[in-house]
Amino acid sequence: MQKVEHIGIAVKDLGISIPLFEKLLRTNCYKTEQVAGEQVNTAFFRQGETKIELLESSTPEGVIARFIEKKGEGVHHIAFAVADIQAEMTRLQAEGFVLLNETPRRGADNKWVCFLHPKGTNGVLVELCQEAEATT
Amino acid sequence: MQKVEHIGIAVKDLGISIPLFEKLLRTNCYKTEQVAGEQVNTAFFRQGETKIELLESSTPEGVIARFIEKKGEGVHHIAFAVADIQAEMTRLQAEGFVLLNETPRRGADNKWVCFLHPKGTNGVLVELCQEAEATT
Repeated sequence: MQKVEHIGIAVKDLGISIPLFEKLLRTNCYKTEQVAGEQVNTAFFRQGETKIELLESSTPEGVIARFIEKKGEGVHHIAFAVADIQAEMTRLQAEGFVLLNETPRRGADNKWVCFLHPKGTNGVLVELCQEAEATT
Repeated sequence: MQKVEHIGIAVKDLGISIPLFEKLLRTNCYKTEQVAGEQVNTAFFRQGETKIELLESSTPEGVIARFIEKKGEGVHHIAFAVADIQAEMTRLQAEGFVLLNETPRRGADNKWVCFLHPKGTNGVLVELCQEAEATT
């Protein structure tokens, strides 16, 4: 793991939460992105080398909607940057961690991602993420 | 806010969680510290410019014990480094955020800290922290 790449926060309504986090963090949201495959709308803020990623469900049945229903708004996951996601998945599985994805899948912000089961990480939903190659 | 200074994670037992996070993060815990005033034992790991701080309650009635009882183990708070905590407290209060401390109090890791009420920050318990002066 290289650094905390971002912290994902589940929110009900980006229209309310973007200006709220702009006031809190005293920095502007620099990007919004819809991730259709994950049924989320995202909004990003920079804080040093880490990003804050707000996550709003784009459907009532989406994973973020269900998370909020169960636990309320709040921190959803912590993402760590890795240089080689496949190698890190192999290493963590050998250490006994349970992967929620068999192969890396495409996430927001041009990343390959894989989640670890929170039961094996003290309740923290951990995401590994590796920058995808530029699609130029 | 300058950066994510640390992410606080509530755990039941540091004896279990320190080796678990050492495997997860592939880095050794570099410091443990008891914070008597907060009734917590802490353990720190570096991840880039951010720290991961594990929090174990030192008493059955402590705030971390009650958090775990209610919500289970997991992310407890996100701490942002600030240059001038008093100025930031004044600014955030004027913006409508609710402070949980009227004046900065002494936290772990040689910091002055102040928490914001999570009801005003989408369920995220936010800590402001400023490095205290060296006590040489």
